[in-house]
Amino acid sequence: MAIQESKVKTAVDGRKGERADHIYRVAAEIMCQKGYEATSMKDIADAVGLTKAGIYHYIVGKEDLLFQIMSFAMDMVDENVVTPARKIADPEQRLRVIIEGHARRILEVGGAVTVILEEMAALTPAHRKAIRARKRRYFDLVRETIGELQTQGKLRDVDPTVAAFNLFGMINWISRWYRPDGKLTPDQIMRDFLQIALNAVLRNA
Amino acid sequence: MAIQESKVKTAVDGRKGERADHIYRVAAEIMCQKGYEATSMKDIADAVGLTKAGIYHYIVGKEDLLFQIMSFAMDMVDENVVTPARKIADPEQRLRVIIEGHARRILEVGGAVTVILEEMAALTPAHRKAIRARKRRYFDLVRETIGELQTQGKLRDVDPTVAAFNLFGMINWISRWYRPDGKLTPDQIMRDFLQIALNAVLRNA
Repeated sequence: MAIQESKVKTAVDGRKGERADHIYRVAAEIMCQKGYEATSMKDIADAVGLTKAGIYHYIVGKEDLLFQIMSFAMDMVDENVVTPARKIADPEQRLRVIIEGHARRILEVGGAVTVILEEMAALTPAHRKAIRARKRRYFDLVRETIGELQTQGKLRDVDPTVAAFNLFGMINWISRWYRPDGKLTPDQIMRDFLQIALNAVLRNA
Repeated sequence: MAIQESKVKTAVDGRKGERADHIYRVAAEIMCQKGYEATSMKDIADAVGLTKAGIYHYIVGKEDLLFQIMSFAMDMVDENVVTPARKIADPEQRLRVIIEGHARRILEVGGAVTVILEEMAALTPAHRKAIRARKRRYFDLVRETIGELQTQGKLRDVDPTVAAFNLFGMINWISRWYRPDGKLTPDQIMRDFLQIALNAVLRNA
Protein backbone atom coordinates (compact mmCIF):
# COMPACT_ATOMS: atom_id res chain seq x y z
CA MET A 1 0.00 0.00 0.00
CA ALA A 2 1.32 3.42 -0.97
CA ILE A 3 0.87 4.82 2.50
CA GLN A 4 3.11 2.17 3.97
CA GLU A 5 5.65 2.46 1.19
CA SER A 6 5.91 6.16 2.03
CA LYS A 7 7.38 5.14 5.38
CA VAL A 8 10.22 3.30 3.66
CA LYS A 9 12.62 6.16 3.40
CA THR A 10 14.34 5.31 0.12
CA ALA A 11 14.41 8.12 -2.41
CA VAL A 12 12.12 6.41 -4.90
CA ASP A 13 9.53 5.26 -2.42
CA GLY A 14 9.72 8.65 -0.73
CA ARG A 15 8.79 10.37 -3.98
CA LYS A 16 5.95 7.95 -4.60
CA GLY A 17 4.82 8.48 -1.01
CA GLU A 18 4.77 12.26 -1.36
CA ARG A 19 2.86 11.99 -4.62
CA ALA A 20 0.38 9.63 -2.99
CA ASP A 21 -0.05 12.00 -0.01
CA HIS A 22 -0.79 14.82 -2.46
CA ILE A 23 -3.40 12.67 -4.22
CA TYR A 24 -5.01 11.87 -0.87
CA ARG A 25 -5.31 15.53 0.07
CA VAL A 26 -6.71 16.58 -3.31
CA ALA A 27 -9.10 13.62 -3.41
CA ALA A 28 -10.31 14.45 0.10
CA GLU A 29 -11.04 18.05 -0.96
CA ILE A 30 -13.04 16.87 -3.98
CA MET A 31 -14.95 14.28 -1.93
CA CYS A 32 -15.78 16.97 0.63
CA GLN A 33 -17.20 19.23 -2.04
CA LYS A 34 -19.05 16.68 -4.17
CA GLY A 35 -19.65 13.89 -1.65
CA TYR A 36 -17.78 10.57 -1.69
CA GLU A 37 -20.23 8.64 -3.90
CA ALA A 38 -20.60 11.43 -6.45
CA THR A 39 -16.80 11.72 -6.88
CA SER A 40 -15.36 9.69 -9.77
CA MET A 41 -11.81 8.45 -10.27
CA LYS A 42 -11.75 10.72 -13.33
CA ASP A 43 -12.53 13.79 -11.16
CA ILE A 44 -9.51 12.93 -9.01
CA ALA A 45 -7.19 12.11 -11.93
CA ASP A 46 -8.12 15.42 -13.60
CA ALA A 47 -7.46 17.39 -10.40
CA VAL A 48 -3.97 15.93 -9.88
CA GLY A 49 -3.02 16.03 -13.59
CA LEU A 50 -2.84 12.29 -14.16
CA THR A 51 -4.53 10.18 -16.81
CA LYS A 52 -7.14 7.74 -15.58
CA ALA A 53 -4.61 4.96 -16.27
CA GLY A 54 -1.87 6.90 -14.49
CA ILE A 55 -3.82 7.30 -11.25
CA TYR A 56 -4.18 3.52 -10.98
CA HIS A 57 -0.41 3.42 -10.45
CA TYR A 58 -1.16 4.95 -7.06
CA ILE A 59 -4.64 3.71 -6.28
CA VAL A 60 -6.36 0.31 -6.55
CA GLY A 61 -9.89 1.74 -6.70
CA LYS A 62 -12.24 4.24 -5.09
CA GLU A 63 -12.97 2.35 -1.87
CA ASP A 64 -9.28 1.62 -1.43
CA LEU A 65 -8.54 5.31 -2.02
CA LEU A 66 -11.00 6.21 0.73
CA PHE A 67 -9.28 3.76 3.06
CA GLN A 68 -5.85 5.18 2.12
CA ILE A 69 -7.05 8.74 2.85
CA MET A 70 -8.36 7.66 6.25
CA SER A 71 -5.13 5.74 6.99
CA PHE A 72 -3.18 8.84 5.97
CA ALA A 73 -5.33 10.96 8.33
CA MET A 74 -4.71 8.55 11.20
CA ASP A 75 -0.96 8.43 10.37
CA MET A 76 -0.92 12.23 10.76
CA VAL A 77 -2.76 11.97 14.08
CA ASP A 78 -0.27 9.36 15.31
CA GLU A 79 2.74 11.33 14.15
CA ASN A 80 1.68 14.84 15.17
CA VAL A 81 -0.54 14.21 18.17
CA VAL A 82 -0.34 10.73 19.74
CA THR A 83 3.43 10.16 19.63
CA PRO A 84 4.38 13.58 21.11
CA ALA A 85 1.57 13.29 23.69
CA ARG A 86 2.65 9.85 24.93
CA LYS A 87 6.02 11.28 25.97
CA ILE A 88 4.39 13.69 28.43
CA ALA A 89 3.88 12.43 31.96
CA ASP A 90 1.72 15.29 33.30
CA PRO A 91 -1.89 14.73 32.13
CA GLU A 92 -2.79 18.43 31.99
CA GLN A 93 0.22 19.19 29.81
CA ARG A 94 -0.51 16.07 27.74
CA LEU A 95 -4.13 17.14 27.15
CA ARG A 96 -2.93 20.58 26.07
CA VAL A 97 -0.50 19.03 23.58
CA ILE A 98 -3.23 16.76 22.18
CA ILE A 99 -5.75 19.57 21.73
CA GLU A 100 -3.25 22.04 20.33
CA GLY A 101 -1.49 19.48 18.10
CA HIS A 102 -4.71 18.23 16.55
CA ALA A 103 -6.46 21.60 16.17
CA ARG A 104 -3.36 23.27 14.73
CA ARG A 105 -3.01 20.47 12.19
CA ILE A 106 -6.57 21.05 10.95
CA LEU A 107 -6.04 24.83 10.81
CA GLU A 108 -2.75 24.54 8.94
CA VAL A 109 -3.26 21.72 6.47
CA GLY A 110 -7.04 21.90 6.04
CA GLY A 111 -9.90 19.82 7.36
CA ALA A 112 -10.88 17.73 4.32
CA VAL A 113 -9.24 14.53 5.55
CA THR A 114 -10.97 15.05 8.92
CA VAL A 115 -14.37 15.27 7.25
CA ILE A 116 -13.59 12.17 5.16
CA LEU A 117 -12.90 10.24 8.38
CA GLU A 118 -16.69 10.22 8.85
CA GLU A 119 -17.33 8.17 5.68
CA MET A 120 -17.18 4.88 7.59
CA ALA A 121 -20.26 3.43 5.84
CA ALA A 122 -18.50 3.42 2.46
CA LEU A 123 -15.63 1.19 3.64
CA THR A 124 -15.45 -2.60 3.29
CA PRO A 125 -15.99 -4.36 6.65
CA ALA A 126 -12.26 -5.18 7.01
CA HIS A 127 -11.22 -1.59 6.27
CA ARG A 128 -13.92 -0.23 8.58
CA LYS A 129 -12.70 -2.46 11.40
CA ALA A 130 -9.09 -1.27 10.91
CA ILE A 131 -10.00 2.44 10.94
CA ARG A 132 -12.39 2.04 13.84
CA ALA A 133 -9.60 0.39 15.89
CA ARG A 134 -7.22 3.27 15.15
CA LYS A 135 -9.85 5.89 16.09
CA ARG A 136 -10.56 3.92 19.25
CA ARG A 137 -6.90 3.92 20.32
CA TYR A 138 -6.79 7.70 19.93
CA PHE A 139 -10.04 8.13 21.84
CA ASP A 140 -8.71 5.91 24.63
CA LEU A 141 -5.59 8.08 24.99
CA VAL A 142 -7.76 11.18 25.47
CA ARG A 143 -10.21 9.35 27.75
CA GLU A 144 -7.36 8.00 29.93
CA THR A 145 -5.71 11.41 30.11
CA ILE A 146 -8.98 12.90 31.34
CA GLY A 147 -9.29 10.04 33.83
CA GLU A 148 -5.88 10.96 35.27
CA LEU A 149 -7.01 14.57 35.55
CA GLN A 150 -10.07 13.38 37.43
CA THR A 151 -7.85 11.48 39.89
CA GLN A 152 -5.87 14.67 40.43
CA GLY A 153 -9.09 16.60 41.15
CA LYS A 154 -8.59 18.83 38.13
CA LEU A 155 -11.55 17.64 36.05
CA ARG A 156 -14.90 19.38 36.45
CA ASP A 157 -17.58 17.31 38.15
CA VAL A 158 -18.46 15.52 34.90
CA ASP A 159 -18.16 12.04 33.42
CA PRO A 160 -14.70 11.68 31.76
CA THR A 161 -16.18 9.98 28.69
CA VAL A 162 -18.67 12.80 28.12
CA ALA A 163 -15.80 15.28 28.53
CA ALA A 164 -13.67 13.38 25.98
CA PHE A 165 -16.47 13.28 23.40
CA ASN A 166 -17.05 17.01 23.78
CA LEU A 167 -13.37 17.73 23.15
CA PHE A 168 -13.51 15.60 19.99
CA GLY A 169 -16.66 17.43 18.92
CA MET A 170 -14.97 20.82 19.17
CA ILE A 171 -11.76 19.66 17.47
CA ASN A 172 -13.40 17.79 14.62
CA TRP A 173 -15.90 20.57 14.01
CA ILE A 174 -13.09 23.02 13.17
CA SER A 175 -12.86 21.27 9.81
CA ARG A 176 -16.46 22.37 9.09
CA TRP A 177 -16.18 26.05 9.91
CA TYR A 178 -12.60 27.22 9.51
CA ARG A 179 -11.83 29.14 6.32
CA PRO A 180 -8.22 30.26 5.66
CA ASP A 181 -9.56 33.51 4.14
CA GLY A 182 -11.56 34.41 7.29
CA LYS A 183 -10.81 37.42 9.48
CA LEU A 184 -8.94 35.48 12.22
CA THR A 185 -5.45 33.99 11.81
CA PRO A 186 -4.77 30.38 12.81
CA ASP A 187 -2.80 31.70 15.82
CA GLN A 188 -5.73 33.82 17.03
CA ILE A 189 -8.15 30.93 16.60
CA MET A 190 -5.72 28.56 18.31
CA ARG A 191 -5.43 30.84 21.34
CA ASP A 192 -9.24 31.12 21.74
CA PHE A 193 -9.81 27.47 20.92
CA LEU A 194 -7.40 26.26 23.60
CA GLN A 195 -8.97 28.55 26.18
CA ILE A 196 -12.49 27.33 25.32
CA ALA A 197 -11.57 23.63 25.14
CA LEU A 198 -9.50 23.53 28.34
CA ASN A 199 -12.04 25.52 30.36
CA ALA A 200 -14.77 23.25 29.07
CA VAL A 201 -13.35 20.31 31.01
CA LEU A 202 -10.88 21.62 33.64
CA ARG A 203 -11.74 23.43 36.86
CA ASN A 204 -8.83 25.87 36.63
CA ALA A 205 -7.47 25.87 33.11
CA MET B 1 -44.78 19.60 0.25
CA ALA B 2 -45.64 17.06 2.92
CA ILE B 3 -43.72 18.94 5.59
CA GLN B 4 -45.84 22.03 5.09
CA GLU B 5 -49.03 20.04 4.88
CA SER B 6 -48.20 18.62 8.29
CA LYS B 7 -48.65 22.10 9.72
CA VAL B 8 -52.23 22.29 8.43
CA LYS B 9 -53.96 20.81 11.43
CA THR B 10 -56.83 19.03 9.73
CA ALA B 11 -57.23 15.40 10.72
CA VAL B 12 -56.31 14.02 7.30
CA ASP B 13 -53.31 16.23 6.73
CA GLY B 14 -52.22 15.68 10.32
CA ARG B 15 -52.16 11.95 9.75
CA LYS B 16 -50.28 12.35 6.51
CA GLY B 17 -47.87 14.71 8.26
CA GLU B 18 -47.19 12.25 11.06
CA ARG B 19 -46.66 9.46 8.57
CA ALA B 20 -44.29 11.68 6.59
CA ASP B 21 -42.38 12.62 9.79
CA HIS B 22 -42.03 8.92 10.56
CA ILE B 23 -40.68 8.27 7.05
CA TYR B 24 -38.16 11.11 7.47
CA ARG B 25 -36.84 9.69 10.74
CA VAL B 26 -36.57 6.14 9.41
CA ALA B 27 -34.99 7.31 6.15
CA ALA B 28 -32.47 9.40 8.10
CA GLU B 29 -31.49 6.34 10.18
CA ILE B 30 -30.96 4.24 7.05
CA MET B 31 -28.99 7.00 5.32
CA CYS B 32 -26.79 7.35 8.42
CA GLN B 33 -26.01 3.64 8.40
CA LYS B 34 -25.59 3.07 4.66
CA GLY B 35 -24.66 6.54 3.46
CA TYR B 36 -27.02 8.79 1.48
CA GLU B 37 -25.93 7.70 -2.01
CA ALA B 38 -25.97 3.99 -1.18
CA THR B 39 -29.54 4.20 0.19
CA SER B 40 -32.28 3.33 -2.30
CA MET B 41 -35.94 4.31 -2.27
CA LYS B 42 -36.66 0.59 -1.95
CA ASP B 43 -34.58 0.39 1.27
CA ILE B 44 -36.73 3.17 2.72
CA ALA B 45 -40.05 1.76 1.45
CA ASP B 46 -39.16 -1.65 2.94
CA ALA B 47 -38.25 -0.11 6.30
CA VAL B 48 -41.55 1.79 6.65
CA GLY B 49 -43.71 -1.03 5.26
CA LEU B 50 -44.81 0.70 2.06
CA THR B 51 -44.58 -0.49 -1.51
CA LYS B 52 -42.23 1.39 -3.77
CA ALA B 53 -45.33 2.91 -5.41
CA GLY B 54 -46.83 3.73 -2.01
CA ILE B 55 -43.84 5.71 -0.82
CA TYR B 56 -44.14 8.04 -3.80
CA HIS B 57 -47.41 9.21 -2.28
CA TYR B 58 -45.22 10.89 0.34
CA ILE B 59 -42.00 11.57 -1.52
CA VAL B 60 -41.17 12.98 -4.95
CA GLY B 61 -37.71 11.35 -5.16
CA LYS B 62 -34.52 10.77 -3.22
CA GLU B 63 -33.06 14.28 -3.41
CA ASP B 64 -36.42 15.75 -2.47
CA LEU B 65 -36.61 13.30 0.44
CA LEU B 66 -33.20 14.51 1.63
CA PHE B 67 -34.43 18.09 1.42
CA GLN B 68 -37.62 17.17 3.33
CA ILE B 69 -35.58 15.49 6.09
CA MET B 70 -33.38 18.56 6.42
CA SER B 71 -36.42 20.86 6.41
CA PHE B 72 -37.99 18.64 9.07
CA ALA B 73 -34.78 18.89 11.15
CA MET B 74 -34.77 22.68 10.87
CA ASP B 75 -38.52 22.79 11.70
CA MET B 76 -37.69 20.92 14.92
CA VAL B 77 -34.88 23.35 15.69
CA ASP B 78 -37.22 26.31 15.11
CA GLU B 79 -40.01 24.82 17.19
CA ASN B 80 -37.99 23.40 20.09
CA VAL B 81 -35.03 25.75 20.27
CA VAL B 82 -35.31 29.02 18.36
CA THR B 83 -38.91 29.98 19.19
CA PRO B 84 -38.58 29.36 22.96
CA ALA B 85 -35.16 31.07 23.02
CA ARG B 86 -36.37 34.23 21.26
CA LYS B 87 -38.81 34.85 24.12
CA ILE B 88 -35.98 35.12 26.67
CA ALA B 89 -34.50 38.57 27.21
CA ASP B 90 -31.50 37.59 29.36
CA PRO B 91 -28.72 36.29 27.07
CA GLU B 92 -27.24 33.86 29.61
CA GLN B 93 -30.62 32.27 30.21
CA ARG B 94 -31.28 32.27 26.45
CA LEU B 95 -27.99 30.51 25.72
CA ARG B 96 -28.79 27.90 28.34
CA VAL B 97 -32.23 27.27 26.77
CA ILE B 98 -30.66 26.94 23.29
CA ILE B 99 -27.96 24.49 24.40
CA GLU B 100 -30.30 22.43 26.57
CA GLY B 101 -33.18 22.47 24.07
CA HIS B 102 -31.02 21.34 21.17
CA ALA B 103 -28.92 18.77 23.05
CA ARG B 104 -31.94 17.24 24.77
CA ARG B 105 -33.70 16.90 21.41
CA ILE B 106 -30.78 14.91 20.00
CA LEU B 107 -30.58 12.73 23.12
CA GLU B 108 -34.31 12.04 23.15
CA VAL B 109 -35.26 11.60 19.51
CA GLY B 110 -31.90 10.44 18.10
CA GLY B 111 -29.25 12.15 16.06
CA ALA B 112 -29.83 10.75 12.57
CA VAL B 113 -31.50 13.88 11.22
CA THR B 114 -28.62 15.94 12.67
CA VAL B 115 -26.06 13.83 10.81
CA ILE B 116 -28.12 14.11 7.62
CA LEU B 117 -27.96 17.92 7.90
CA GLU B 118 -24.33 17.58 6.77
CA GLU B 119 -25.27 16.12 3.37
CA MET B 120 -25.35 19.55 1.73
CA ALA B 121 -23.43 18.41 -1.38
CA ALA B 122 -26.24 16.06 -2.42
CA LEU B 123 -28.89 18.84 -2.58
CA THR B 124 -29.90 20.78 -5.69
CA PRO B 125 -28.53 24.34 -5.66
CA ALA B 126 -31.96 25.81 -4.80
CA HIS B 127 -32.51 23.37 -1.93
CA ARG B 128 -28.96 23.89 -0.68
CA LYS B 129 -29.50 27.65 -0.62
CA ALA B 130 -32.73 27.27 1.35
CA ILE B 131 -31.21 24.97 4.00
CA ARG B 132 -28.04 27.07 4.25
CA ALA B 133 -30.17 30.16 4.94
CA ARG B 134 -32.07 28.37 7.71
CA LYS B 135 -28.84 27.12 9.32
CA ARG B 136 -27.43 30.63 9.06
CA ARG B 137 -30.41 32.17 10.88
CA TYR B 138 -29.92 29.70 13.73
CA PHE B 139 -26.19 30.36 13.87
CA ASP B 140 -26.83 34.11 13.95
CA LEU B 141 -29.15 33.74 16.95
CA VAL B 142 -26.39 31.93 18.88
CA ARG B 143 -23.69 34.34 17.67
CA GLU B 144 -25.78 37.38 18.68
CA THR B 145 -26.58 35.88 22.08
CA ILE B 146 -22.86 35.37 22.71
CA GLY B 147 -22.24 38.95 21.53
CA GLU B 148 -24.67 40.20 24.18
CA LEU B 149 -22.84 38.12 26.80
CA GLN B 150 -19.59 39.74 25.69
CA THR B 151 -21.12 43.20 26.17
CA GLN B 152 -22.14 42.16 29.69
CA GLY B 153 -18.55 41.03 30.42
CA LYS B 154 -19.68 37.42 30.88
CA LEU B 155 -17.92 35.90 27.87
CA ARG B 156 -14.39 34.56 28.25
CA ASP B 157 -11.71 36.61 26.47
CA VAL B 158 -12.43 34.88 23.14
CA ASP B 159 -13.88 35.78 19.77
CA PRO B 160 -17.71 35.32 19.89
CA THR B 161 -17.78 33.58 16.50
CA VAL B 162 -15.16 31.02 17.57
CA ALA B 163 -17.18 30.48 20.76
CA ALA B 164 -20.39 29.94 18.76
CA PHE B 165 -18.76 27.42 16.42
CA ASN B 166 -17.39 25.45 19.37
CA LEU B 167 -20.84 25.23 20.93
CA PHE B 168 -22.24 23.94 17.64
CA GLY B 169 -19.39 21.43 17.44
CA MET B 170 -20.21 20.00 20.87
CA ILE B 171 -23.97 19.93 20.25
CA ASN B 172 -23.84 18.42 16.77
CA TRP B 173 -21.24 15.85 17.80
CA ILE B 174 -23.66 14.30 20.33
CA SER B 175 -25.38 12.69 17.36
CA ARG B 176 -22.13 10.79 16.61
CA TRP B 177 -21.42 9.38 20.04
CA TYR B 178 -24.62 9.06 22.04
CA ARG B 179 -26.08 5.55 22.27
CA PRO B 180 -29.41 5.06 24.11
CA ASP B 181 -28.10 1.73 25.49
CA GLY B 182 -24.98 3.36 27.02
CA LYS B 183 -24.32 3.52 30.77
CA LEU B 184 -25.43 7.15 31.25
CA THR B 185 -29.04 8.34 31.11
CA PRO B 186 -30.00 11.35 28.96
CA ASP B 187 -30.48 13.36 32.19
CA GLN B 188 -26.95 12.55 33.43
CA ILE B 189 -25.43 13.42 30.07
CA MET B 190 -27.50 16.60 29.88
CA ARG B 191 -26.26 17.75 33.30
CA ASP B 192 -22.59 17.18 32.36
CA PHE B 193 -23.04 18.53 28.84
CA LEU B 194 -24.54 21.81 30.07
CA GLN B 195 -21.74 22.25 32.59
CA ILE B 196 -19.06 21.60 29.95
CA ALA B 197 -20.67 23.76 27.24
CA LEU B 198 -21.44 26.76 29.47
CA ASN B 199 -18.02 26.73 31.15
CA ALA B 200 -16.41 26.51 27.73
CA VAL B 201 -17.57 30.01 26.85
CA LEU B 202 -18.65 31.79 30.06
CA ARG B 203 -16.37 33.15 32.78
CA ASN B 204 -18.64 32.11 35.66
CA ALA B 205 -21.15 29.58 34.41
